[in-house]
Amino acid sequence: MKDTSLIHLQDSADPARRRFIGSAALTGLAGAGLSLGLSGCQQDTKTPATPAAPGTAGAGAHGAGQNPHLKPGELDTYYGLWSGGHTGDFRVLGLPSGRELHRVPCFNPDALVGWGITNESKAIMGTKADGSLRYTVADTHHTHASYKDGNYDGRYAWINDKINSRIARIRLDYFICDKITQLPNVQGFHGIFPDKRDPVDPAINYTTRVFCGAEFHVPLPNDGRDLDSPEKYRSLFTCVDAETMEVRWQVLIDGNCDLAASSYDGKLAATNQYNTEGGYHYEDMMSAERDACLFFNIARIEQAVKDGKFTRIGQSAVPVVDGTRASNADPKTALVGYVSVSKNPHGVNATPDGKYFICAGKLSPTATVIDLGRVLEWFDGRIDDIDKTIVAEVEIGLGPLHTAFDGRGNAYTTLFLDSQIVKWNVDAAIRFHGGDTTAQYVVDRLDVHYQPGHINASQSETMFADGKWLAVGCKFSKDRFLPVGPLHAETEQLVDISGEKMVLVADHPVRPEPHDFIIFKRELLQPKQVYSIDDFPNAVKSPKDAGVVREGKTVTVRITSMAPAFEPREFRVKVGDEVTVILTNLDKIEDLTHGFAIPNYNVNFIVSPQETKSVTFKVDQPGVFWCYCTHFCHALHLEMRSRMIVEA
Amino acid sequence: MKDTSLIHLQDSADPARRRFIGSAALTGLAGAGLSLGLSGCQQDTKTPATPAAPGTAGAGAHGAGQNPHLKPGELDTYYGLWSGGHTGDFRVLGLPSGRELHRVPCFNPDALVGWGITNESKAIMGTKADGSLRYTVADTHHTHASYKDGNYDGRYAWINDKINSRIARIRLDYFICDKITQLPNVQGFHGIFPDKRDPVDPAINYTTRVFCGAEFHVPLPNDGRDLDSPEKYRSLFTCVDAETMEVRWQVLIDGNCDLAASSYDGKLAATNQYNTEGGYHYEDMMSAERDACLFFNIARIEQAVKDGKFTRIGQSAVPVVDGTRASNADPKTALVGYVSVSKNPHGVNATPDGKYFICAGKLSPTATVIDLGRVLEWFDGRIDDIDKTIVAEVEIGLGPLHTAFDGRGNAYTTLFLDSQIVKWNVDAAIRFHGGDTTAQYVVDRLDVHYQPGHINASQSETMFADGKWLAVGCKFSKDRFLPVGPLHAETEQLVDISGEKMVLVADHPVRPEPHDFIIFKRELLQPKQVYSIDDFPNAVKSPKDAGVVREGKTVTVRITSMAPAFEPREFRVKVGDEVTVILTNLDKIEDLTHGFAIPNYNVNFIVSPQETKSVTFKVDQPGVFWCYCTHFCHALHLEMRSRMIVEA
Repeated sequence: MKDTSLIHLQDSADPARRRFIGSAALTGLAGAGLSLGLSGCQQDTKTPATPAAPGTAGAGAHGAGQNPHLKPGELDTYYGLWSGGHTGDFRVLGLPSGRELHRVPCFNPDALVGWGITNESKAIMGTKADGSLRYTVADTHHTHASYKDGNYDGRYAWINDKINSRIARIRLDYFICDKITQLPNVQGFHGIFPDKRDPVDPAINYTTRVFCGAEFHVPLPNDGRDLDSPEKYRSLFTCVDAETMEVRWQVLIDGNCDLAASSYDGKLAATNQYNTEGGYHYEDMMSAERDACLFFNIARIEQAVKDGKFTRIGQSAVPVVDGTRASNADPKTALVGYVSVSKNPHGVNATPDGKYFICAGKLSPTATVIDLGRVLEWFDGRIDDIDKTIVAEVEIGLGPLHTAFDGRGNAYTTLFLDSQIVKWNVDAAIRFHGGDTTAQYVVDRLDVHYQPGHINASQSETMFADGKWLAVGCKFSKDRFLPVGPLHAETEQLVDISGEKMVLVADHPVRPEPHDFIIFKRELLQPKQVYSIDDFPNAVKSPKDAGVVREGKTVTVRITSMAPAFEPREFRVKVGDEVTVILTNLDKIEDLTHGFAIPNYNVNFIVSPQETKSVTFKVDQPGVFWCYCTHFCHALHLEMRSRMIVEA
Repeated sequence: MKDTSLIHLQDSADPARRRFIGSAALTGLAGAGLSLGLSGCQQDTKTPATPAAPGTAGAGAHGAGQNPHLKPGELDTYYGLWSGGHTGDFRVLGLPSGRELHRVPCFNPDALVGWGITNESKAIMGTKADGSLRYTVADTHHTHASYKDGNYDGRYAWINDKINSRIARIRLDYFICDKITQLPNVQGFHGIFPDKRDPVDPAINYTTRVFCGAEFHVPLPNDGRDLDSPEKYRSLFTCVDAETMEVRWQVLIDGNCDLAASSYDGKLAATNQYNTEGGYHYEDMMSAERDACLFFNIARIEQAVKDGKFTRIGQSAVPVVDGTRASNADPKTALVGYVSVSKNPHGVNATPDGKYFICAGKLSPTATVIDLGRVLEWFDGRIDDIDKTIVAEVEIGLGPLHTAFDGRGNAYTTLFLDSQIVKWNVDAAIRFHGGDTTAQYVVDRLDVHYQPGHINASQSETMFADGKWLAVGCKFSKDRFLPVGPLHAETEQLVDISGEKMVLVADHPVRPEPHDFIIFKRELLQPKQVYSIDDFPNAVKSPKDAGVVREGKTVTVRITSMAPAFEPREFRVKVGDEVTVILTNLDKIEDLTHGFAIPNYNVNFIVSPQETKSVTFKVDQPGVFWCYCTHFCHALHLEMRSRMIVEA
C-alpha cells in the first residue's frame, strides 16, 4: 500500500496551491470530519487561475494548438453525448464549440416535445394505474454508445437513472428515447457500459449487452424484511439485452458496484467498488484501506445461466448467479474475480489498446493499473493471486477520479481535491511500479475550475482514441461565469491535448449536472432529418382522412398539419368525453416542425416532419379552446389554429 | 397604402437571393395558398451564406469590431434574459459568449431544482384538488424586466405562458420564480410589457404595472355560451400589479392583441393587432388591408375604474372597462385609440428616445412609425384623425416582424421572409415619408440563418441603448449545426452592431423556442449567491433540530445537510404514513448545493446554501430506501446518504 500522506508526489506540484488543499483535507477525512474537499474547494478559489503548477500551460493560453472557435455556419467536427444529471435527459453537444445542439428527453417529462404528455411517450416512460406518470424525477449519470469493431457504430446510446434504477435507450438515427427498463432487485443503479463484442461468437463483433452496476445495498427482496439487519443487505451487477432491453441476468456480489467497464475482446466486464465494507454511514464506507475492482467472466456467467445454476429473487423472473467471494474461490470455475485496488475508487476505465483497466483511488492519491491479459490468466488458473494482475499503482495526485486517454499511451486523470488534470504515461507508470525509479510517468498537470469529476477525450473510449480534444466536467463553477443566484452552472472545460502540454481553451457552463459523456468524430453518425410517415401506424396520411369519429363518449379526432393550417380547422366535443387527438405533420421539409397546444387542457406537443403523435384527455370544461401551433413554422404561424368547441 | 409587390425596394437587394423568396411567397399568400415562407425557406438554404446582399458584411467575417470569444475564466459583459418557449422556463445567457448560464423553472416542472416536486414550488405553480399540478405545459414567449428611470433596476422580470394565460414573476436577486397569476377572461396571452413609470405620480419613476395582451377571441365568459357565434367572441387587454401580481383591470377591445409596449413617460401602453377582422380561419385574419395598433391611456383607464365605470365578467372580480371603438369615439374621453398600421403586424417596439412606437407589417413590406407626442395630442383632442400620428410608413423588406435599436437613431428589423436584418434610420424614414425622396433610410442589410423572429440589441429597450451587440432569434437552423435528428435547434445569431455595417460573428443553437429576450449590462444586476436561512420559516437551523416527529399517521422528518452528511442518517416511517420531509442546507459556501432523492418515491430536489425546501408524500412501499445526495458536493458525495426505513 502506498503512502497517502502526499508529502512527496513524483513531480513537484506548485507548493502554494498544494498547501491549501493537501494535508488538511486528508486529515479531516481520516477523522471523519466534514472539511474534506470543501475546505480545499473554498480556498482553491483564492489561488489565481494563472500561473498554474510548473509543467502546466497557463490557463487562458490560446493558439498553442487547435482553435475551438467556429465561424458562423461552420460545423463542429465532433459529437459529444452528455448525460443530463437530474434533468433526466440526454444531451448532444457539438465540439470543439461546446454548443448544446439537442436534448433528448428520456426519464423526465419535457414540455417542448410533449414527452410525458403524448400517449406514445407515456407508454415508454411507464404509468400508474390512473394513467399518470410513474416517475417524473431521475438522475442520469453515464451515457455510452453501441460499438462495432471497437468503435461507435451509431445505432444506440444508453443512459441510466440512479434514483429509480432505470436504463433508457436512445436511437441515434432520430435522437429519440425508444425504450426504458427498470432493473429489479437493485437500488442506486449508477455505472453503465455496453459490451464491445461477444465473448464467444466472433461474428458478433458489436454490442449486444449493457452492463449495469448498483451502488446501494438493500434487503433481497426489498419488501420490508431485514430492515434492521444491514449486514444482510446486498448489491447486484446486471446485464441488459441491448436489443430487447430486457434484463438477461444478474450477479449477486460482495460489496457494491460503482462504475462499469467492458473489455474490447468481449470477455470481461468490470465494476469498481468503493464500499467493500458494506457500510451504511460514510465513515464505515471508508474504513478499509483498500477496495476492489470486480471482473465478470461473461461467458462463464452465461453458461451458468444456461445450465440452470441460478436463483430468483422475490417476484422477479431474472436469473441471479452467485458471484460472492465465498462461492468464487476457485479461479478455474469463478464467475467473478475480486482485484484489490486503491481506497474508495470512483471509476474504472479501459485503455484504448485493450490491455488495461485503470481504477483511481478517490481517497488514495494513486491509480491502479490492472492487466486484462493477466486477469484472463487468473480465470484460467495460471495465476494464484488475482492481485498479481496489478501492474502499476502509482501516485498521481489528490482525489483521483476518472481517466481518459489520447491513444499515444497517456492517461488523463481528474484530481478532485487538487482541482487538476494529471497527464501520465501508462507504460512509464508500469516501469516505475516495476522498480525503475527513473521512469518519469507524470507528463503534465493542468489546473481546472473547479473540483473536476468526469473526464473524456475525443474517441477515448474506443480503439481509435485520437488525442485531439479533452473535456472535463467540473462540479463547481464558482467565479467562472456571471453570477445568477445561488444555483451555479457547472463548468465543462475544453482542453487541447494535441501537444505535449495540455492547453485550457474554453469554459462552457452546463445545467447541473451532466456527470459523464463521450466524444467522437462526426462521421460516425448519420442522423435522419425527416421521419417516415409509415413508421407510425396511426398516421393521418391526408387532410381527407382528418375529422372526428365518435363512439359513445369515446371520441377520436384525426388532425393533419401543413403550414399554415390544421385540418380540421374546428372540431366539436362534449363535456364528459374521452378524446384522443391524433396529429400527423404532413410537411416534409427538414426543420418544419409544428406544435399543438390546447389552452387550459394541459396539452402541448410538437410533431416534426412526417411524424405522428397522439394525446388522450377527459373533456371537463365547456367553451371555445383555440388549439394553436406552438412551434414557429411560417409567416402565418400565429394564424395557424384549430378551434375546439366544447359543448356543456 | 403602399404597394406590396416588392418589386422596388429602396435599396438594391441581392437579386439572386431575392428571386427565390420574393413574389412567389406573396402570391401564395394572396391566394391563401400554403407556400408562403416555406417555399422561400426551403429554397433559401440553397443560396450560399456568403457573399450576402450588397451592403452586407460577409457572414463569417471576424475582427471588424468586437470579439465575441472569451478566454477561459473571462466574464461576459452583458446579461441576456431569454424566454424558454415551450420549455416553460426563463433562461439567462451571458453575452457576447452566448453561453446559457442558468434556467429558472417557472410554469413547468424541473426535476433538477425539484420545481413541481417541492411543496413550496407547487404552491406557486398551482395544484388541483388532489394535490397534483394543475398544468405541466406552457409556452413562454416574452420576457421583460422592471424599470427605474428608464433603465432596468434588477428587481424583477416577467414571462408569459400563452397556453394557459399565466404570467410569472422572477426575482432577479436569487433568480427564482416567486409568483404566478392566471389571467381571467382571456385566451392566448401573448404580449407582455412592464410600465416604466406612473402616468400621474412623478415620484413613482419605476415599474408598478405589467401589461398583457390576449390574442384569441373567446366567448365572454367562456363557459359554453356563444359557441357558434364567433362574432361575439372578444379579447381583452390586462394590467397586472407588479408587486401583488393581482390583476388590476382589463379593457374590452375590438380586434385582438398581439405584443405590447409601454412609453417612457408612463402615460401610454400599446398592443398591435393582426386580427382586427376577428377572423377564425387564417384567410379571414388576413383579409383586411390594414390592421391596428391600440393605445391605452393608463391614467384615464384607472380613473374610470376608480369612478366605478366598469363591468365584471362571469365569476371574475376584475373590473373591465370598455375600450371598444364604438365607446371611444371621442378622443377627449377615450380610454383607447386605434391607429391604423400595416397589414398583420407582429410587434410594437418603443424607440429609446421615447418618441416613437414602431409596428412592422408582417404581411406588408413596411414599418409604421407612430409619434407618441401626437398620440397624446389626439387624446387631448388636438388632432382629429388618430392616423395623423403616423409619421412614417416605409418599405423595408419582406415579412418584417420585430425591431431593435442602437441608440444612434437606427432601427434593426427582422425580415422573416427575406431571412435578413434591415438596419434603417428612423429620422431618414420620417423625412422620406414626408416627401424627401432623397432620404436614404435603409443603411444596411444582413443575411441571417434562417427566418428570423425576435431581435434585440444591448440595452435596446431602455433609454440607454448602447449599440454594441445585437442578437436575432432565427426560427430555423437547418444546416447551421451538426444534424441531430428531425427536431432542430433554433439559431440565436450574434451580430456586432458597433460599426456602420452589421457583422455576423457567431451562431448559437438554442432549445426551441425562445422567442423574445432582452440584453443589458452586467452592472445592472447584483444577484445573491447564498440564501438567508431566516427567509425560510420552516428552516431546520441545526443538526440538533433534525429528527422525526409523528402525530398519528402524519410524520414530519426534519433533515439538515452539511457535506458529506445528512442528519439524521436514518429515519423510520410506516406504510400508510403521510410524510413531510423538510431539508435545510446548512452549508454556507457559495456553490455548495446538495440534492435529496428518495429512490422509487419520485422525490428529488436540490437545496442551495442556506436554503430550505420540503416535500410531502404518501408512504406506499415497505423496504430500505437510500436517500442520497444528487448534487456533487464533496469527495465523499457518493457516501452522503440517509436511510429511510419503511416498515410494512
